[in-house]
Amino acid sequence: MVVVMDGRASAEQVEAVIMRLEECGFSAHPIYGVRRIVIGAVGDRRVLNSLGLETMPGVERVVPIMKPYKLVSREAREENTVVQVGHVAIGGSQLAVIAGPCAVESRDQLLAAAHMVQQAGAAILRGGAFKPRTSPYSFQGLGEKGLKLLAEAARQTGLATVTEVVDEHSLELAVEYVDMLQVGARNMQNFRLLQMVGRSGKPVLLKRGLSATVEEWLMAAEYIMSEGNGQIVLCERGIRTFEHSTRNTLDLSAVPLVKSLSHLPVIVDPSHATGDRRLVGPMARAAVAAGADGLLIEVHPEPTQALCDGPQSLTPSQFVSLMEELRAVAAAVGRAA
Amino acid sequence: MVVVMDGRASAEQVEAVIMRLEECGFSAHPIYGVRRIVIGAVGDRRVLNSLGLETMPGVERVVPIMKPYKLVSREAREENTVVQVGHVAIGGSQLAVIAGPCAVESRDQLLAAAHMVQQAGAAILRGGAFKPRTSPYSFQGLGEKGLKLLAEAARQTGLATVTEVVDEHSLELAVEYVDMLQVGARNMQNFRLLQMVGRSGKPVLLKRGLSATVEEWLMAAEYIMSEGNGQIVLCERGIRTFEHSTRNTLDLSAVPLVKSLSHLPVIVDPSHATGDRRLVGPMARAAVAAGADGLLIEVHPEPTQALCDGPQSLTPSQFVSLMEELRAVAAAVGRAA
Amino acid sequence: MVVVMDGRASAEQVEAVIMRLEECGFSAHPIYGVRRIVIGAVGDRRVLNSLGLETMPGVERVVPIMKPYKLVSREAREENTVVQVGHVAIGGSQLAVIAGPCAVESRDQLLAAAHMVQQAGAAILRGGAFKPRTSPYSFQGLGEKGLKLLAEAARQTGLATVTEVVDEHSLELAVEYVDMLQVGARNMQNFRLLQMVGRSGKPVLLKRGLSATVEEWLMAAEYIMSEGNGQIVLCERGIRTFEHSTRNTLDLSAVPLVKSLSHLPVIVDPSHATGDRRLVGPMARAAVAAGADGLLIEVHPEPTQALCDGPQSLTPSQFVSLMEELRAVAAAVGRAA
Amino acid sequence: MVVVMDGRASAEQVEAVIMRLEECGFSAHPIYGVRRIVIGAVGDRRVLNSLGLETMPGVERVVPIMKPYKLVSREAREENTVVQVGHVAIGGSQLAVIAGPCAVESRDQLLAAAHMVQQAGAAILRGGAFKPRTSPYSFQGLGEKGLKLLAEAARQTGLATVTEVVDEHSLELAVEYVDMLQVGARNMQNFRLLQMVGRSGKPVLLKRGLSATVEEWLMAAEYIMSEGNGQIVLCERGIRTFEHSTRNTLDLSAVPLVKSLSHLPVIVDPSHATGDRRLVGPMARAAVAAGADGLLIEVHPEPTQALCDGPQSLTPSQFVSLMEELRAVAAAVGRAA
Repeated sequence: MVVVMDGRASAEQVEAVIMRLEECGFSAHPIYGVRRIVIGAVGDRRVLNSLGLETMPGVERVVPIMKPYKLVSREAREENTVVQVGHVAIGGSQLAVIAGPCAVESRDQLLAAAHMVQQAGAAILRGGAFKPRTSPYSFQGLGEKGLKLLAEAARQTGLATVTEVVDEHSLELAVEYVDMLQVGARNMQNFRLLQMVGRSGKPVLLKRGLSATVEEWLMAAEYIMSEGNGQIVLCERGIRTFEHSTRNTLDLSAVPLVKSLSHLPVIVDPSHATGDRRLVGPMARAAVAAGADGLLIEVHPEPTQALCDGPQSLTPSQFVSLMEELRAVAAAVGRAA
Repeated sequence: MVVVMDGRASAEQVEAVIMRLEECGFSAHPIYGVRRIVIGAVGDRRVLNSLGLETMPGVERVVPIMKPYKLVSREAREENTVVQVGHVAIGGSQLAVIAGPCAVESRDQLLAAAHMVQQAGAAILRGGAFKPRTSPYSFQGLGEKGLKLLAEAARQTGLATVTEVVDEHSLELAVEYVDMLQVGARNMQNFRLLQMVGRSGKPVLLKRGLSATVEEWLMAAEYIMSEGNGQIVLCERGIRTFEHSTRNTLDLSAVPLVKSLSHLPVIVDPSHATGDRRLVGPMARAAVAAGADGLLIEVHPEPTQALCDGPQSLTPSQFVSLMEELRAVAAAVGRAA
Repeated sequence: MVVVMDGRASAEQVEAVIMRLEECGFSAHPIYGVRRIVIGAVGDRRVLNSLGLETMPGVERVVPIMKPYKLVSREAREENTVVQVGHVAIGGSQLAVIAGPCAVESRDQLLAAAHMVQQAGAAILRGGAFKPRTSPYSFQGLGEKGLKLLAEAARQTGLATVTEVVDEHSLELAVEYVDMLQVGARNMQNFRLLQMVGRSGKPVLLKRGLSATVEEWLMAAEYIMSEGNGQIVLCERGIRTFEHSTRNTLDLSAVPLVKSLSHLPVIVDPSHATGDRRLVGPMARAAVAAGADGLLIEVHPEPTQALCDGPQSLTPSQFVSLMEELRAVAAAVGRAA
Repeated sequence: MVVVMDGRASAEQVEAVIMRLEECGFSAHPIYGVRRIVIGAVGDRRVLNSLGLETMPGVERVVPIMKPYKLVSREAREENTVVQVGHVAIGGSQLAVIAGPCAVESRDQLLAAAHMVQQAGAAILRGGAFKPRTSPYSFQGLGEKGLKLLAEAARQTGLATVTEVVDEHSLELAVEYVDMLQVGARNMQNFRLLQMVGRSGKPVLLKRGLSATVEEWLMAAEYIMSEGNGQIVLCERGIRTFEHSTRNTLDLSAVPLVKSLSHLPVIVDPSHATGDRRLVGPMARAAVAAGADGLLIEVHPEPTQALCDGPQSLTPSQFVSLMEELRAVAAAVGRAA
């Protein structure tokens, strides 16, 4: 870390900072510039916040040098992590497509969706049984009944499954029925939930929060991994910006960036990012070209009847076409799909 | 709601939308413009999302007219709600100042803070026992021990108390020891937690999420109120923007705006918003001038030694000075402090 | 447009709005809902702002229905516009790659860059002679001398050329030497400059402003086109968001969105968007997969010596590799490159 | 500046960076940490961008320590600058209120506004003669005729005057008729215009751009001051964020922040920031409480008839009430109004 002293800091103030650093186990290296003194400090970034340096007289600001995450960083592990979800590998040479409806609504709906996405080439079935909704008056999911339907769909189709968990109760149920647990964007900094999925031992799909920086997103993964669970797939799903002509702004540059900072696989959810099915196809193709390890795509047998997120769900025939397009783009960037 | 048809929509497509609206209990009022047909629809906004209109052929977009919240709206209740926290009223003519350290760290620290803020004129003591921290390696709070210290500080000083809850466990403990429950910014859309505090019957301090719109913030309050608990105080604490020279951007215009949309009291947290103690005083004064019903201010007996958020905590003498300034500004806008 | 009346608006207030609309040439269609009256109004959106409806008693808000742009809209012209820059067509089946250094720095530098990008397959040479820099102390460009070097490079290589203009003076010079005029992101709402390039008759490369909505961007193009110049290429170059780990956030979903709203070609600048050469390749590939009509890429013979934007400039060998990758992705989405 | 080397950088790469720094006149101070080498560099920040350090092999990133602005900084001048506009001082103990219509529309309108704001206690009259409008179809201002009306209003009332300039032509006219030149938000990085107003010798009102950081805003002021003109008043007018329930988000914390970083006066425009006259009063009071040196407020004799920005303009009686409220708040923070 580097401590920048104010231009008017006294020699005593500089000395006090150096002493504070040294009493906390850092080595201090002052550099005397023309208008500023800066103090380089070598030690453990993780205790930096408890040093209180910013509050010491004469300190202008503190600049951290090391990243705050450790286990999830590329420095901790050079090779890519491949996450195993049932028989499906995410993070290897094969593009992994997760598809299905936003919410499990009925047996007919889910089984129709499952068979269709399986035939089109998807590897994992998604479907929400516990839905975190902005309004208390919206459909909140089928709960355990939904999980049972997911398990039935998996048996019939051979697909692996993923579903969102929102608290201890839903987590305890979900581990019985599905192959992978999803932590949703609004819970990305629900640290208790992160610790619980960390202890569950199940693979985790960790969505980026609407306004989470890349660093905060990796710190959320660090929470999971520090509980002993390194089976984490990161999912970019759009961030909140001033632009409201799409629901969110898909930050595709996060894909190559995160892959350079971390060894974890990264997939992309173009459905929630855009909120508009006409944009899902182009953004899915773009994600693959940018190097994403997989996609999360909403598909509904009859989007017009969907209880949730109909406008962004693809119809079955749109999904079939998209899978063909994706195979071509994947091949162009040296990947199987 | 208003359904805007595409310029090229056919008569059959217009008819299909009208039929869909009517079969769902809406009355439909088409208006034939020069280049667009728009259909006004009268009915219950809360079922709007399940109509699937955006996905129907020929529909360009759907514009909601009614607000999605109901119980918390000014239309549901004309007069201001006054929330009673112990013997303290928030939302009346008296400005309510909540003060104390970010985290409860020790008996000495908390009792020193409590006596000091009480003497300076604060009405409620704050202090975190369960801390949601960005890093798993940061101090996570004293848990129940911290709650017991809050209760002891309350007995000694007569202050009411508020603390943050993060899950079922912390909630069950907190209701035994404190007068008010805080839902933090990162949990503003943790809907299970909102429902739980709604059922607790305790007054709730609901912080605005870092990237929550005013509408989403009011919907979070609606979650609490739809569980039967209307004792809610809203707290503006800064939103996330491109500007990084302050930690967040304090959105003070939300104060008069929310007070026009809702009957609930609104307070302001200038400490988390700015992250810099030099800005806390000016922003606290500004909040009172803008019409805030109270303030949430971090004060620490020795900020340099704080385990959390030292840079934004006021020293005792700074807090005493600020309280005097606030009394002058409050008087200027017709309020006691 | 739709006028939403306040829930407590009186019959007289409703009547006054209807009269105001009719005296301004609109036809008014009131719809009486349970808790709101809304008034549909048919007429010219472009005079809407001067009606003053929002300020009339009893009006809650005014919702525009029509888009404010006209000439650039897809409704005004169904088929794609193809912009001709010298012998190069932008917007047709061939991907158009514009490449070159951020700034023209010297004859050696520009000619080296020009020959290199031409051999690698670029169609247009870029190079700034008038540089709008954040700091008055940074290199401001070579001016007319830079333009002469661009013209010389064009003669030697057969490349078409584009350069940024910043005011009347630079525009008058640039039209003599280059094939296409660029309006930079910081000037996207410099309306006088837009009118001037509109009257110049030259093809225009219009960059999206850092914080411009898609609608404002199209309105800037409308300024140019309303002066009689429809030879406009739109360029997405990243928007400003809270995320600072990349310089800007590349909004690739704007590509398919704008192409649905407008007939104008859209290209992408991954260099300025990311500010980091390691991300330029993945984002360039993604842009092509998303349907962009072209790319704008910074290449410098020796990025380490660049006077401007070195960190985001590709080296010659990186650019050669990228062009090969782009050919594969372009083919996968049915495009020549 | 501090150069952070990659964890895997070789000794040769470190050496190359040190040599590059030294050949450019910097002194280099390497610090050897456990996992990183960082190199402190002492020298002129203003040439930093042309060093190309980020592009050198083994460099992870470069952290600037010094601010990029110089003349406008508080370090360059300890005492507050007071800007003299006609007989009005901005930046002293007296709050300066600038008021008037968005646009000069007619002689009757402007003279009515001028007399009214003068009687209510405003010191400076505003009115736009050259209007930068988002749409080419909106009212663009009266041009020189508007300037003449401003001059006539000044003669009749004794008010000083300010008007916006947008290019060389409007600037040349405006210097003949008004006391202060305004650079609008959309032109804050129109560097040619900044240089021109810098050379004009007139006091300048510099609005913050919609998405300008505080640092960029101060760099825009540096452009003006580096041309020899230090008579600059900064105006916070709201920034663009995800929140759309107000037109912009008024960043009041920028007031105390900028006053700590710079010696220039800072005023606030609550009218453009909120876009809603109901919020103008609370935000004007808050601005004064936060320490603003003045206010810029839109007032129109008949807002319903305004050709521009009617919804945010105060009526005469609202303005009279607001001035009384402001006097009370100003007194509470030790200021005359």
